[in-house]
Amino acid sequence: MTDTADRADVTAAVEDRLRRVGRKIRSSMLDAMPDGEPVRWLYGPMREYPSRPGKALRPALCMSAGRAFGGAADDLLGVAVAIELLHNAFLVHDDIVDGSEMRRGRPTLASKYGLAAALNAGDALAVVAGQVLRRATRRFDRDLADLVWAEFDTMAMRTLEGQATEAGWLLDNVEQLRPEDYLELIMHKTCWYTTIHPLRVGAMVGSRGTAELAPLVRFGFHFGAAFQIRDDMLNLVGDEKMYGKEILGDLYEGKRTLPLVHLTANARGADRDLVLEYLNMRRDERTPELVRTIRDLMDDYGSIEFTTKFAEGILSVAEDYFQEAFASAQPGHDLDFLRSLVPYVWARWR
Amino acid sequence: MTDTADRADVTAAVEDRLRRVGRKIRSSMLDAMPDGEPVRWLYGPMREYPSRPGKALRPALCMSAGRAFGGAADDLLGVAVAIELLHNAFLVHDDIVDGSEMRRGRPTLASKYGLAAALNAGDALAVVAGQVLRRATRRFDRDLADLVWAEFDTMAMRTLEGQATEAGWLLDNVEQLRPEDYLELIMHKTCWYTTIHPLRVGAMVGSRGTAELAPLVRFGFHFGAAFQIRDDMLNLVGDEKMYGKEILGDLYEGKRTLPLVHLTANARGADRDLVLEYLNMRRDERTPELVRTIRDLMDDYGSIEFTTKFAEGILSVAEDYFQEAFASAQPGHDLDFLRSLVPYVWARWR
Repeated sequence: MTDTADRADVTAAVEDRLRRVGRKIRSSMLDAMPDGEPVRWLYGPMREYPSRPGKALRPALCMSAGRAFGGAADDLLGVAVAIELLHNAFLVHDDIVDGSEMRRGRPTLASKYGLAAALNAGDALAVVAGQVLRRATRRFDRDLADLVWAEFDTMAMRTLEGQATEAGWLLDNVEQLRPEDYLELIMHKTCWYTTIHPLRVGAMVGSRGTAELAPLVRFGFHFGAAFQIRDDMLNLVGDEKMYGKEILGDLYEGKRTLPLVHLTANARGADRDLVLEYLNMRRDERTPELVRTIRDLMDDYGSIEFTTKFAEGILSVAEDYFQEAFASAQPGHDLDFLRSLVPYVWARWR
Repeated sequence: MTDTADRADVTAAVEDRLRRVGRKIRSSMLDAMPDGEPVRWLYGPMREYPSRPGKALRPALCMSAGRAFGGAADDLLGVAVAIELLHNAFLVHDDIVDGSEMRRGRPTLASKYGLAAALNAGDALAVVAGQVLRRATRRFDRDLADLVWAEFDTMAMRTLEGQATEAGWLLDNVEQLRPEDYLELIMHKTCWYTTIHPLRVGAMVGSRGTAELAPLVRFGFHFGAAFQIRDDMLNLVGDEKMYGKEILGDLYEGKRTLPLVHLTANARGADRDLVLEYLNMRRDERTPELVRTIRDLMDDYGSIEFTTKFAEGILSVAEDYFQEAFASAQPGHDLDFLRSLVPYVWARWR
């Protein structure tokens, strides 16, 4: 696709921009946070995740798409901040459900403050996200404000549908999943709020409601799916310090990621029995040795290799859709950034 | 205050109106619920609490105050439905935090579907509450819509502050509480969203933003506090079937209700040691015998009697404030209903 030097340039440029957007969005999130009591059990915990450096992909997509479609930064910032705040709210609640201990390299709210404080802090972050978006949409005429809000609500519901589906798979101990089921899941759980919504709402605000949004869904879905699969892979092959979460945490949980779906469908004989038995266990029954065995089976059955190829296929479709999605966008730094995202994710696969 | 026959009339009239409002609000809540998948793990669970008959006090206050201040039912219904939906969202999350098993006479979402589904369903109910309020406020001019939304956000944050404070008291095992601390807590946790907000937002919509809202806060606070104390008392002295929740559930949890605050402050010697030891225990260490002993101590130390007198005092202040709060309201059925609420709660104390 590109040679090694180009790839390093693309990666550095994308990461530099994400860092800059991240700083701006973090300070805006913290500015939006109300002062009040109790600090110890609500307002303090609420500030934690927004203070920790995250990827900032969502706000970067929103701001860049918005400007590429002719918008002003002032019209876009509040919309991007609202997305990131809702993302933080979801992370807080996800970490409760998943029983996760680490988030962005530090303890999760649930493990640091307990269930009640974490649950309230997540709820409160969602309220503040709404406050920020209401302030942001006051600048727009009422029709555009209504459109933006309809997008935001749709995104929230799609995400919850995805989370509920995934939780249901675990609770029902679903065994017969195909890659298509996994894609359908992450379309809801991840893509809608990570890529599709930020791009759509950015384009909507930038173009004052005139941009065509359907092609953005196609690009956003394929790019977002590849991004999520990369995230799942990092949990299997990554480095804990870089990653900021527990390595193999998804496997401890029995999360139906693409490599696990592949392994479950392909393991044979005693291996298959072991995998099915593993899926049936409670989290606390899954010993480090057993988790390591399942992880090794993923190598033996080519599940990691399959997942890598699958993601490459999706990424190349995303690249094909890029042109159509941004046909009416203006050339410039923002469009360049958006165009470099596919090579950026690609660079991590090779 | 009133004689027995009057009291029976007041009670019957209030309950009849609450039942009628409750039916209307329940069907409106269910109409507002989106169709989608997964039914089994999200849309089904979401419909459960809104389907179960609840008190409907909040929407009844909002609708009545709104009409008493000159509003039309069509302008008020969506606002009232949004309040009740957010109330349901909070109940779902509260039941997770409290580990409650019963709600409105049936299993809680957490006990029926597990933590993940309950958490998602609560989040989704809050999103739908927002959708309903956005549809409702589209009828208003933008300034009024902004005012209504600011009220709604304030109410949500006050409630979360109260919940976080209460959870913090439990986690820190706070022993030194005075009745004033309890009042401050329920001002946030209960009154704001049970009485103050419904009355204020109803009056705001009804009067198109011209009604004076501060006196409504004074009335709403005192009435709401008495209402909450009555609810706490029913948990100690009530009948499980009528009440719809576990009797003595608050005591199992160690919830700092007014009778428990009183007992902790007044028990002496070995009784005091036992109460402090009790507060320090985990929920699963509190045996039925022990809970019964603590409950009996509340009788011995006059904690139930104190609480009753305290609530009567608050109710009579609420009655004094009624006149001021509704001075500019129109006479009629709605004002009559609002005026009968104090005698209605009073009737339960004698």
